[in-house]
Amino acid sequence: MEEETLYATSNPLYGGSLGKNINCWRSLSTCTAKLQESSVAKLQGIQSSQRRLLGSSAYELHRNDSFSKLSLEDIDYFKKILGEKSVIQDEDVLSTANVDWMRKYKGSSQLLLKPRNTNEVSKILKYCNSRYLAVVPQGGNTGLVGGSVPVFDEVIVSTSSMNNIIGFDNVSGILVCEAGCILEKLDSFLAEKGFMMPLDLGAKGSCQIGGNVSTNAGGLRFVRYGSLRGNVLGLEVVLPNGTIVDMLGTLRKDNTGYDLKQLFIGSEGSLGIITKVSILTPLRLSSINLAFLACNDYLSCQKLLLEAKTKLGEVLSAFEFLDCESMELVLSYLDGVRNPLPPSNFYVLIETTGSNESHDKEKLESFFLHSMERGILSDGVMAQDMNQASSFWQIREGIAEALMKAGAVYKYDLSLPIENLYKIVEEMRKRLGESAKVLGYGHLGDGNLHLNISTPVYDDTVFELIEPFVYEWTSKHRGSISAEHGLGLMKANEIHYSKSSEAVHLMASIKGLFDPNGIMNPYKFLPRSLLSQHKEDASLHGPEI
Amino acid sequence: MEEETLYATSNPLYGGSLGKNINCWRSLSTCTAKLQESSVAKLQGIQSSQRRLLGSSAYELHRNDSFSKLSLEDIDYFKKILGEKSVIQDEDVLSTANVDWMRKYKGSSQLLLKPRNTNEVSKILKYCNSRYLAVVPQGGNTGLVGGSVPVFDEVIVSTSSMNNIIGFDNVSGILVCEAGCILEKLDSFLAEKGFMMPLDLGAKGSCQIGGNVSTNAGGLRFVRYGSLRGNVLGLEVVLPNGTIVDMLGTLRKDNTGYDLKQLFIGSEGSLGIITKVSILTPLRLSSINLAFLACNDYLSCQKLLLEAKTKLGEVLSAFEFLDCESMELVLSYLDGVRNPLPPSNFYVLIETTGSNESHDKEKLESFFLHSMERGILSDGVMAQDMNQASSFWQIREGIAEALMKAGAVYKYDLSLPIENLYKIVEEMRKRLGESAKVLGYGHLGDGNLHLNISTPVYDDTVFELIEPFVYEWTSKHRGSISAEHGLGLMKANEIHYSKSSEAVHLMASIKGLFDPNGIMNPYKFLPRSLLSQHKEDASLHGPEI
Ligand SMILES: Cc1cc2nc3c(=O)[nH]c(=O)nc-3n(C[C@H](O)[C@H](O)[C@H](O)COP(=O)(O)OP(=O)(O)OC[C@H]3O[C@@H](n4cnc5c(N)ncnc54)[C@H](O)[C@@H]3O)c2cc1C
Ligand SMILES: Cc1cc2nc3c(=O)[nH]c(=O)nc-3n(C[C@H](O)[C@H](O)[C@H](O)COP(=O)(O)OP(=O)(O)OC[C@H]3O[C@@H](n4cnc5c(N)ncnc54)[C@H](O)[C@@H]3O)c2cc1C
Repeated sequence: MEEETLYATSNPLYGGSLGKNINCWRSLSTCTAKLQESSVAKLQGIQSSQRRLLGSSAYELHRNDSFSKLSLEDIDYFKKILGEKSVIQDEDVLSTANVDWMRKYKGSSQLLLKPRNTNEVSKILKYCNSRYLAVVPQGGNTGLVGGSVPVFDEVIVSTSSMNNIIGFDNVSGILVCEAGCILEKLDSFLAEKGFMMPLDLGAKGSCQIGGNVSTNAGGLRFVRYGSLRGNVLGLEVVLPNGTIVDMLGTLRKDNTGYDLKQLFIGSEGSLGIITKVSILTPLRLSSINLAFLACNDYLSCQKLLLEAKTKLGEVLSAFEFLDCESMELVLSYLDGVRNPLPPSNFYVLIETTGSNESHDKEKLESFFLHSMERGILSDGVMAQDMNQASSFWQIREGIAEALMKAGAVYKYDLSLPIENLYKIVEEMRKRLGESAKVLGYGHLGDGNLHLNISTPVYDDTVFELIEPFVYEWTSKHRGSISAEHGLGLMKANEIHYSKSSEAVHLMASIKGLFDPNGIMNPYKFLPRSLLSQHKEDASLHGPEI
Repeated sequence: MEEETLYATSNPLYGGSLGKNINCWRSLSTCTAKLQESSVAKLQGIQSSQRRLLGSSAYELHRNDSFSKLSLEDIDYFKKILGEKSVIQDEDVLSTANVDWMRKYKGSSQLLLKPRNTNEVSKILKYCNSRYLAVVPQGGNTGLVGGSVPVFDEVIVSTSSMNNIIGFDNVSGILVCEAGCILEKLDSFLAEKGFMMPLDLGAKGSCQIGGNVSTNAGGLRFVRYGSLRGNVLGLEVVLPNGTIVDMLGTLRKDNTGYDLKQLFIGSEGSLGIITKVSILTPLRLSSINLAFLACNDYLSCQKLLLEAKTKLGEVLSAFEFLDCESMELVLSYLDGVRNPLPPSNFYVLIETTGSNESHDKEKLESFFLHSMERGILSDGVMAQDMNQASSFWQIREGIAEALMKAGAVYKYDLSLPIENLYKIVEEMRKRLGESAKVLGYGHLGDGNLHLNISTPVYDDTVFELIEPFVYEWTSKHRGSISAEHGLGLMKANEIHYSKSSEAVHLMASIKGLFDPNGIMNPYKFLPRSLLSQHKEDASLHGPEI
């Protein structure tokens, strides 16, 4: 598909005339000004080396001594089954693989394995299980909760050498591929066939489909194409004991038995390793439009969402928001990014995807006019071409990177009822005062807030003001402490803020059933008290599968 | 919402002018004529009493004697905890509850319990579990695989007295209700608020949302709104040991732990009883159009589907098909139903749902014109009002009822790659010759065929020609032997045609974990050899939850 067909090169109805229509931009609150004077300036001097690397000590964790330590015989065995090249002990490679994307979590693994196919994964896990060697599965290592890196000396099993596309059916749109395929590459592959991936996220250039499925990633297209729980049609997985379970169905509907693959979707490497994925991909419809809009207050953003759902209905494909603090940070830290609108308190990105360009534009026009008349939209601009669309997306997708450049960051990924979603940002600002910069942005269309707190360096006093307050507040407002990023190491012990004790207990039983020796991604995902308890139970009964 | 807004009362672009445009109807194959001469005539004399009621003997099943028999003390206990009214021993009521919708499966339960709330369900199950009394959960009893009725003397636990709507959020469209709410009533409730249920099926007037979730029902809107796996946001369930598990989340996204509710979606009462459901409901968009179309052959139906996906894209909300045998049966057995088109080999029902009436009509027009030009559409008519739309739907939704009236019916609900989907109908026709009428219809948009074989009375010779052939064929063509109806009693032993032995083994482990005494809906869902095996395992280890 050529660029021109995706974004109309000239856009007479919008862009130009929209600039004319949407001209009721009013003088801003002092928010933007304040930001420039204070925190941002303070943050600018920070170098990445000053970020605190949180090793296990920060979590007061102790290595579980029932796991074996890696021996020379182990290495020899892996070389025998995988070949020299796939058994990596190189320090540089290991030091990258031991640290997460945020440079916040750091392990000390001595070994990275790169199996090339399912059988190799099976042999690895079977061996590790029998030797009580702990394992951490790693995809693109873009996870944001410390799940993808070792806590101590776990063996890293990377899927990056398993990156073949196995098949694509262009009648049904069903794609089958290996777990190590990079999301963006899959999307480009599909673009040529007139299809697209049902998910898209800022980390698309590095994250892998296996990692996406393991974290049940949401992202930018969720509001239109829904959850991976609906789109993933099949998986092949390897259990901790090496058993290969073929659940790689390629059917839209299949009600034969429990839907076991659902246990693996979002299980963050705690039950086994996903080796292949079958996924339903939607048609890449020909008309895509992107608007960058401004709202004066959060209430207007909310109203705009309802308006978009009604007026844009079936063509709405993204509804993202950011506050002025997020905008300022991006402008300060990312080169070549500019705000297409005069400063405002809130910005909203709306994308539509449809089969008929002129229908979509008519719908957008009616949506804009109505929203302007109702006073919920203060300004806006439509992307005139693919480049401008990318530059709009860069603002929203660049926030995570800007935060990284700005210093230390405390990331929270909350689901909240929409009416309360921004309150936590305001309360957190009051709570932290000048000591930190509080940013609110995210997937408003799905009720998903990314609350990010930026400080020059990691600071225990700040941390104690944030946690457990943020979890308690979320729980009180019937929210989820993890909308899409998962639990990992960061929130394993906090699950009870979002799940009942009966549910957590059931989860621990399931973990015990699949992984009786507890070798898969230990210390993470479930409360550590329950994990060790189940390990003991399991050793009494022996492996159950 | 008023009727007029749903279906435009006058429809100048279609209907009338479509009749003019789509006038290339050609002379039919002999299919229709043959049908009238032979089987239908033969079937017409059959009375419902002649249908064979398949008790357990047909499946050569023996009652599992580790289950207790109901005692007077048990009845007394239930009366104490539920009150006299909810403990039903009345023979008439029991005889209805013991027989399934098809009148094909019949149990001999002596007791029907009608708890009014979750606590009562909990007390019932806790007691039954401790007493080793087997239980069958029953919703609307419209299931088509013998799952909802007892096989022997299981206690029937009906959810029909648990039918309260708990809450509805008209910002997010999230509905929370008790499991016993009838699907159609929920849809009517939502209609008043401008929303709709994401699923719709022929049994909507009787089936309950708890039953729908337990069977992971698909239905007519699946092609647009997707699977219950994506739409169900939360469940409250009672485990066999009486534990109430609150997973009744009301959030669009929640990645905290394993998604346990997925195990209950489609588990057909084998793991516990669903007591409450939280579900995401879409906006009831204002423009709905329905077309009843004719195609000369199956290949044209396939091409029409691709055309609809491309041209109607985001507004397509149903794509159903039926063959001429299905049409003839409906015309013969249902009063007041008429074919709006001249006889044809295949009929397709296409529904669009969108936010802008004129856009949708323009899309439909372009779709029709293009399909006519390409010669894949031979005739068609648009519903002019709500009444006409209902009459079109009545044809498609009435097939199941017509089959019931026609005599005995062997029902198969297959998922198949679309290019092969109709081949099994043709092969079955060849195989059975004059001895039976073979019908093909279903949710073509999802690759879901309802293959139905109609005979005057149940006939073992016919049966042996059908099974295991139909399963072997489906398995060979990488299909599923149950797209949406589930396994129940009918297909419990056939799961291996669609699932690997590793997967089935894992399922049995999960069943053993949740229901160590095996009291929930015994003899069904999983191969009986594995179920009894796990019962023994469980008694060794003792209950695990
Ligand atoms: C800039 C940026 C933007 C992001 N935006 C979003 C967003 O919009 N929405 C969203 O949901 N997330 C987002 N994320 C986080 C998201 O979780 C990841 O980007 C992605 O889904 C993880 O994929 P990965 O291949 O990098 O997995 P990793 O980070 O390598 O691993 C993630 C977890 O899955 C496990 N795992 C990985 N592969 C496998 C496998 N094959 N089998 C079993 N377990 C496995 C790991 O052990 C780990 O627990 C973002 C991250 C970044 C850095
Ligand atoms: C005319 C007709 C048309 C149909 N069309 C479709 C269709 O298009 N798509 C489709 O998918 N299905 C269809 N079906 C079958 C479908 O499975 C059911 O109609 C419906 O989903 C079952 O709901 P129910 O309340 O009647 O459940 P029941 O029949 O009472 O029960 C079904 C199963 O679920 C279990 N169960 C019921 N309630 C609970 C509960 N609360 N907790 C735990 N277990 C429970 C039962 O034990 C049983 O195993 C159709 C049936 C008919 C008769």
